[in-house]
Amino acid sequence: MNTDLIALQAQLRDFMNTKVIPRESEFVGHFGLEKIETVRSELQAEGRKSGLWLPHLPKELGGLGLPWVDAYKLFIEAGRSMLGPQAINIAAPDEGNMHLLHVVANEAQKERWLMPLVRGEIRSCFSMTEPPPGAGSDPSMLQASAVKENGVWKLEAKKWFISGAWGAAVTLILAKTIEGATIFLIPMNHPKIHLKRVIPTLDHFSPGGHCELDFDGLELTDDDVLGEPGKGFDYAQIRLDPARLTHCMRWLGVAMRSLEYAEGYALSRSSFGKKLSDQQMVQQMIADSHIEIFASQTMIEHACGMLDRGERVRHQASMTKVFVSEAVNKIIDRSLQIMGSTGISEDYPVSSFYKEARPFRIYDGANEVHRMSIARRAFRRAAERHT
Amino acid sequence: MNTDLIALQAQLRDFMNTKVIPRESEFVGHFGLEKIETVRSELQAEGRKSGLWLPHLPKELGGLGLPWVDAYKLFIEAGRSMLGPQAINIAAPDEGNMHLLHVVANEAQKERWLMPLVRGEIRSCFSMTEPPPGAGSDPSMLQASAVKENGVWKLEAKKWFISGAWGAAVTLILAKTIEGATIFLIPMNHPKIHLKRVIPTLDHFSPGGHCELDFDGLELTDDDVLGEPGKGFDYAQIRLDPARLTHCMRWLGVAMRSLEYAEGYALSRSSFGKKLSDQQMVQQMIADSHIEIFASQTMIEHACGMLDRGERVRHQASMTKVFVSEAVNKIIDRSLQIMGSTGISEDYPVSSFYKEARPFRIYDGANEVHRMSIARRAFRRAAERHT
Amino acid sequence: MNTDLIALQAQLRDFMNTKVIPRESEFVGHFGLEKIETVRSELQAEGRKSGLWLPHLPKELGGLGLPWVDAYKLFIEAGRSMLGPQAINIAAPDEGNMHLLHVVANEAQKERWLMPLVRGEIRSCFSMTEPPPGAGSDPSMLQASAVKENGVWKLEAKKWFISGAWGAAVTLILAKTIEGATIFLIPMNHPKIHLKRVIPTLDHFSPGGHCELDFDGLELTDDDVLGEPGKGFDYAQIRLDPARLTHCMRWLGVAMRSLEYAEGYALSRSSFGKKLSDQQMVQQMIADSHIEIFASQTMIEHACGMLDRGERVRHQASMTKVFVSEAVNKIIDRSLQIMGSTGISEDYPVSSFYKEARPFRIYDGANEVHRMSIARRAFRRAAERHT
Amino acid sequence: MNTDLIALQAQLRDFMNTKVIPRESEFVGHFGLEKIETVRSELQAEGRKSGLWLPHLPKELGGLGLPWVDAYKLFIEAGRSMLGPQAINIAAPDEGNMHLLHVVANEAQKERWLMPLVRGEIRSCFSMTEPPPGAGSDPSMLQASAVKENGVWKLEAKKWFISGAWGAAVTLILAKTIEGATIFLIPMNHPKIHLKRVIPTLDHFSPGGHCELDFDGLELTDDDVLGEPGKGFDYAQIRLDPARLTHCMRWLGVAMRSLEYAEGYALSRSSFGKKLSDQQMVQQMIADSHIEIFASQTMIEHACGMLDRGERVRHQASMTKVFVSEAVNKIIDRSLQIMGSTGISEDYPVSSFYKEARPFRIYDGANEVHRMSIARRAFRRAAERHT
Repeated sequence: MNTDLIALQAQLRDFMNTKVIPRESEFVGHFGLEKIETVRSELQAEGRKSGLWLPHLPKELGGLGLPWVDAYKLFIEAGRSMLGPQAINIAAPDEGNMHLLHVVANEAQKERWLMPLVRGEIRSCFSMTEPPPGAGSDPSMLQASAVKENGVWKLEAKKWFISGAWGAAVTLILAKTIEGATIFLIPMNHPKIHLKRVIPTLDHFSPGGHCELDFDGLELTDDDVLGEPGKGFDYAQIRLDPARLTHCMRWLGVAMRSLEYAEGYALSRSSFGKKLSDQQMVQQMIADSHIEIFASQTMIEHACGMLDRGERVRHQASMTKVFVSEAVNKIIDRSLQIMGSTGISEDYPVSSFYKEARPFRIYDGANEVHRMSIARRAFRRAAERHT
Repeated sequence: MNTDLIALQAQLRDFMNTKVIPRESEFVGHFGLEKIETVRSELQAEGRKSGLWLPHLPKELGGLGLPWVDAYKLFIEAGRSMLGPQAINIAAPDEGNMHLLHVVANEAQKERWLMPLVRGEIRSCFSMTEPPPGAGSDPSMLQASAVKENGVWKLEAKKWFISGAWGAAVTLILAKTIEGATIFLIPMNHPKIHLKRVIPTLDHFSPGGHCELDFDGLELTDDDVLGEPGKGFDYAQIRLDPARLTHCMRWLGVAMRSLEYAEGYALSRSSFGKKLSDQQMVQQMIADSHIEIFASQTMIEHACGMLDRGERVRHQASMTKVFVSEAVNKIIDRSLQIMGSTGISEDYPVSSFYKEARPFRIYDGANEVHRMSIARRAFRRAAERHT
Repeated sequence: MNTDLIALQAQLRDFMNTKVIPRESEFVGHFGLEKIETVRSELQAEGRKSGLWLPHLPKELGGLGLPWVDAYKLFIEAGRSMLGPQAINIAAPDEGNMHLLHVVANEAQKERWLMPLVRGEIRSCFSMTEPPPGAGSDPSMLQASAVKENGVWKLEAKKWFISGAWGAAVTLILAKTIEGATIFLIPMNHPKIHLKRVIPTLDHFSPGGHCELDFDGLELTDDDVLGEPGKGFDYAQIRLDPARLTHCMRWLGVAMRSLEYAEGYALSRSSFGKKLSDQQMVQQMIADSHIEIFASQTMIEHACGMLDRGERVRHQASMTKVFVSEAVNKIIDRSLQIMGSTGISEDYPVSSFYKEARPFRIYDGANEVHRMSIARRAFRRAAERHT
Repeated sequence: MNTDLIALQAQLRDFMNTKVIPRESEFVGHFGLEKIETVRSELQAEGRKSGLWLPHLPKELGGLGLPWVDAYKLFIEAGRSMLGPQAINIAAPDEGNMHLLHVVANEAQKERWLMPLVRGEIRSCFSMTEPPPGAGSDPSMLQASAVKENGVWKLEAKKWFISGAWGAAVTLILAKTIEGATIFLIPMNHPKIHLKRVIPTLDHFSPGGHCELDFDGLELTDDDVLGEPGKGFDYAQIRLDPARLTHCMRWLGVAMRSLEYAEGYALSRSSFGKKLSDQQMVQQMIADSHIEIFASQTMIEHACGMLDRGERVRHQASMTKVFVSEAVNKIIDRSLQIMGSTGISEDYPVSSFYKEARPFRIYDGANEVHRMSIARRAFRRAAERHT
């Protein structure tokens, strides 16, 4: 591991411990979206001058220009707090949106939306999921539609579980057009976007919540189209390939921090005449958690190497997403179990992580859907072998 | 199954659907302990006249006098809502405390504490768990102590995670005395009991929360002793034998209700061209949940038969508690997964159940501790076989 | 538990320990089907005079006439050795075949086939499974067919994995006829039945192996039809309802015996300064095994009560089969793991059980197919709830 | 991936398909150790001239001199058949013994034992495990002892489960000496080594079986000592660091081949109206298997990078061994399940793999012991963090 990276990691660990994690105590009990927004903005003020801002983006966008095989270690480190990715501007969904805009947007769009995003001045969301009978696990069920007449697109859409929508400045939205699926870029203050509600959910730390939105006959121009009409699903995939992996990195940080609390607890408590850390049932839970973290890291590392070489990682990202999302939930669950009643309390963030991490097995493609895709690719290859 | 029982079940199902479950909508988002108290009291007013009050307690205490092999079915049914057991007065910890007082308390104690409890006029708590280095998983680490001098007991204790303490009228408390462990009965309004805090936790539906209490040099008399000094652990076990099983019954109701929502969802939603209910990955989760429910029911049923015959069920209750607590968590987790983003939302109670049920693998003896006990008993029997 | 049953259980335990289990030592290493046949016949000579013969069959058939809630305990006990069910004539597939003949066969068929079976003079098999594209997990793919012309049925069939076929005196065979599926009774020495091969398999203890059979244009009469033409699948289900449960009983005996060896081993061996039985990772495996045995027993017990009351147990038998077949494999696997290298050796029967029990998750309906059926029934009931 | 390596992989795949795998058909049913020996020797004749011999050993020893990050791919490929590693001389225990001799042996020992081993002229074994109360999971329980008097070591030892002992030319043996644990090199034809028995076991493909050996007062000289007296455990660890990983590589090949059979089967069979490969329960098993293979590969790859950089991999090798040994068993088990009765038969090698792979969770350190070690290292690091 090169020495620059080691220094960056140490610097980020220090930043997390001194700037980010101390703010968590403000989030015990009931808190609202405004609170997250305030703290996010204060942390970003620190993050911007930290030398850790946007580690994976090119220097011309204000990032550190690290390759993924290095950057992923910083993503994991920042992931140790729900607030960490906010602080250095690598949180979902902005991080994926920035990537997509960087690759596909035209200069005007970059100037208008990408640059404020990389500077952390605005937030964005990605409007894809729809209430039934629309697109959920199966994107082909897309109902949102935009019809072009006389050079004007007219967009009708109902979307829900749109993460970050409350308070976002811009949304990317996927809709059916005659050319296929198309992505539009729309300012969220458009008068015909109605934020119907922030859906109350199990998790509470997503800036801007998970929202239900109506797009009620918006009139859009070609300038609002991202890339080319009809390429919406391709672009969504361009976004998802790294975005699925960065989710894994951030959540792995959460799992590792939970495990650290459990280890500290087990070292300090005794029952039945010896320390919990000397009891095999605890050791087993600790060992299984370390094994899963090691497997998660090496899967991510391998996929990052592929990303850096410009290879497609769709299959590897699917496999990693399924494994890591389940590992993270198990590791948090074991950590909580080791800590007993203390784990259930909000005296440590583990009980909060228990709620926050659960949706990860559903968002970004339910694990069942990923398993279908993984198997289909495997069977395609097997069929080729047999012919 | 006898026809009276079938009628009672139908009546309770109706009571749940018309009186209890409609009240749940008041508990979305943030709510407090006062809210629970108000609704509890209103529901008990209905429950008292429902003919379903205290199904397992003898008629002379105002119950229905059902044997456990019948009563358990009503406990499961009431368990379908977090509010159900409150409504017919079979919620923890009162239910276990009533049982213990019924078996051990003297007439004066019964008059003072048991009768108001069975009438639902007061609530109670059981002060056992202590902050480190006190009694948690290992009851032998008990630090609370009561010293008798000149006929007066002086009690010093620190307790935490005492469920139901806020708003309780009376606590049973376990303390070391020269005779061994002893249980005292103390009014919660005693000036030397300090409720330090209601501990913020993952779960929110426990009436009276989970509290931290200081007992600061209380002076008690022999009248405050439950049963005989030194028999505290025996009494705790008398309480726990059925209490562990009733926990299983109530939580099984929660799991069954979660599964019903998941089934309804899977019947109504489609993806990839067919209904979720026709997709094998969903079928597998549904089947595994039904299998675990069937296993849970038959284990409970078997143990209930033993209780009715006056047999000790310590071993069976331990095995059932471990199995059911893990099954319940898995069933809720699968139900939530099947429901996707909808499962994560608070539009259905499944996401709330996900939080509420988690502590069950820790409370009433962490599952790891039960596994140790189960194995030790097995090895004792094995050692006898080999000699 | 009634005292007669306790006495019978003790008697069977003694019979197993003194007559049956000592014969196992003859089966280490490589042995063949003839060896099984010889030992079976010698053990049946003992079994017939043991007072334990056919505990579940009516007295007029030479059985003990016990209800299932009693008989199942003897099935489990006999199951502790692969040779036990042979010894008292309750082994598959004869046991299921006797049940079906008892319920459906006419007097002549009973005289010819059922009576020699109950006396243990002959063995039988049930020819259902077919090579692709025939009936396997999906019975509706049945290819075997019998066409009636001029009062004579002509049967063409290819069957495989027919357990017990080598050495059997009679086979029941399922074939398509114009009326639907029909079962025929045919002597195995019929010149047009060709035993193509005894299929080499993972398991070795099934008397008569698992065989591939060709039925090459046999001419049959109405006297060879079991019950009524077209009712074949109904009869198969009549056979399977209890047969699935008796499989569970016998294999549970195998699991319990494995666990006993593991317990004995753990009590006698030490590592890292203490006995294996005092080490929590071992305790956990032991506890999980006991929990699964308890769950298995209570599921079986519940289903037996239903059988005794004449209720259909199809759903319960499916759930029990899936649970018990997976539990049995896990319990054997854990027992082997606890015993380390000794578990891998043939010095104890656990390594043999590891092979013998594996097919149970496939035979009698692959667990995946049972899960589909369980879910479908659950969804049917859910759909009724929602209308 | 460099082009040379790709060519080597293709060449090895071809070698496996044309030379090695066709020989497997000779091993159906019952076969003995002699048969393995004959085929091994014939395959090695092919392997020696294949250009694939000993890919990981330096060229001066007749190997290909590949770094581990390349060589591991060839180990996996060779592992696809139980006979593959024999054919190119990378099978256990020789492979680990060669590594150890290469690092520690003196020139005379290398000439006498290492060179014939690398040429495939002889086989070796490693005598470590002892019957109780000797060294098993806990090496500190070592009972074998060698006492030096007048320049002559006198060795007394009882060993069992010594893989490969039958037919081996030399054994390395671990014994207690006054300096600590010491390894001796002894010709197996020494008159005071008694091969008591080849232990009958679940697995059958280990050349030379698993044997019980008595070392009955052998007189040895300093020339028979490997390296320095007292460093036996260090040397054992030098051997195990890569040896644990190469076990993982070889067994991963077995798992991948099982999966290929299951995929081929699922593509060719139908039930309930569609191909197994289109059924989600099958897809789930296939996907989980691919995920575990991907995780296994990346863990191995990461550890190989460390080995190539000369870093210690003890912790990583432990974690990888636990994960891969359990993954391999699960993948084989799922493959067998997908194939139904066909999977149980010996028509495909999957049922054989089911037996062969089981001991891997026990050998080379039972997974429970690895978990203890992993947890202890984790707690050591956690304790440092907290101080």
